[in-house]
Amino acid sequence: MNQKVVIIGAGNLATRVALELHNKGVEIVQVYSRTVTSALTLARLLGCNYVTKAEKITPDADIYLISVSDMVMYDLISTVNFNNKLVAHTAGSIPMEELQKISDNYGVFYPLQTFSKFRDVNFSRIPFCIEANNTTNEAILVELASIISKDVRVINSEQRKQLHLAAVFVSNFTNHMYSVANEIIQEKDLPFDILYPLISETASKVKSMTPRAAQTGPALRNDKNIMQDHLSMLGGKPKFKKLYSMLSDSIMEYHKLPK
Amino acid sequence: MNQKVVIIGAGNLATRVALELHNKGVEIVQVYSRTVTSALTLARLLGCNYVTKAEKITPDADIYLISVSDMVMYDLISTVNFNNKLVAHTAGSIPMEELQKISDNYGVFYPLQTFSKFRDVNFSRIPFCIEANNTTNEAILVELASIISKDVRVINSEQRKQLHLAAVFVSNFTNHMYSVANEIIQEKDLPFDILYPLISETASKVKSMTPRAAQTGPALRNDKNIMQDHLSMLGGKPKFKKLYSMLSDSIMEYHKLPK
Repeated sequence: MNQKVVIIGAGNLATRVALELHNKGVEIVQVYSRTVTSALTLARLLGCNYVTKAEKITPDADIYLISVSDMVMYDLISTVNFNNKLVAHTAGSIPMEELQKISDNYGVFYPLQTFSKFRDVNFSRIPFCIEANNTTNEAILVELASIISKDVRVINSEQRKQLHLAAVFVSNFTNHMYSVANEIIQEKDLPFDILYPLISETASKVKSMTPRAAQTGPALRNDKNIMQDHLSMLGGKPKFKKLYSMLSDSIMEYHKLPK
Repeated sequence: MNQKVVIIGAGNLATRVALELHNKGVEIVQVYSRTVTSALTLARLLGCNYVTKAEKITPDADIYLISVSDMVMYDLISTVNFNNKLVAHTAGSIPMEELQKISDNYGVFYPLQTFSKFRDVNFSRIPFCIEANNTTNEAILVELASIISKDVRVINSEQRKQLHLAAVFVSNFTNHMYSVANEIIQEKDLPFDILYPLISETASKVKSMTPRAAQTGPALRNDKNIMQDHLSMLGGKPKFKKLYSMLSDSIMEYHKLPK
């Protein structure tokens, strides 16, 4: 693929996707970010130039990948002339049609994964959700995604939005469970790594059985003594106590247990 | 180790621990469970006899591993004479001293893992938390655990209880997040396996960075539009909507973001 790509944004997702495309030989010609240090850092890694003003984004590229918050995206729409080149955003929740005002050629390039700037991830298994305003653009985005992933799917805006909501539960909320657990065990000077095998097994289990079948624990057993005990241990942390109580109730309800 | 072991209980944990001990050459002489089919199934797999009445538990073994709910355990205490043999329970939240009335030799043999009856797990990495009423019994339980795991630790009741509470967050509550996500994506006829790479990466991430540093998502970005959008998508599922709202608030609070 000899298309020139511009990366708009320099956050977690923009950084990891841009680096992966670059490593696989895709030509990234420019990075845009309002934050000069972010723009500079990413541009250096990619060996390309950067701009911090939207009106300076080059009109000479072939594909523009927009990976910024929706607020910033609406700003871009009003200030940049994309010359009707192919413009795709990388967001789970933004409908494709929002890009209609930006260009006649538009689409979505959404990797279903959690990214942190400095953590390398294995792209080959990441599901890329592609959508485009016509089959030509769809083919271009599918081709681009296929350079870095073996799991490229055409998914419409409604499904993608639903996937993103599910992703918040399995990733963002799950990670918050890890944060809470970390606070809890640090209180007794226990190391977080003692929980690694449990974290791994919990994640692996649901690949061979449904989450419903994989459920274990005091709430599922309706073990009121232990739940009561846990709630009193969380007495000094009312927010965590409320979470514990609500999540236990939710498990009991999901599994149709009497409260 | 040529000690004879009796397994009291035939639930998820009892089943997996008994099978692993058996596979590693430990002699299991009897299984007790009030439920005849559970007792029979496990005893068959172990090639030993079973009893369903507590008073029929053999007094001739060396180690009794109790893996039953705390209610059932208190029943056992009053009906079984353990001849002052070594008795250990496998529970996270029950203090060791509860076994004082059962025998002069007692302890705890707690594997920090989630078990389902029919899922094989890699025991070698499971942290076994050992506690005993004296160093002789501690050494016996450490030796027994070391047959199946490379991670055997002496942990007191208070720490173990704290670990168990943390385990509920990283495993039971996390698995519930997977259940909720599964419900959400099934609504749009999407397959749950599209979430596997995200589930795996979320679990792996916290092995190389703190959960605080690993956090991503709309709540962390304080992206009110997306959160509002997600809440309205969950309009038909008020329980999930409440969970979403509470977990997002908890993330914002934990990361000291303005609401």
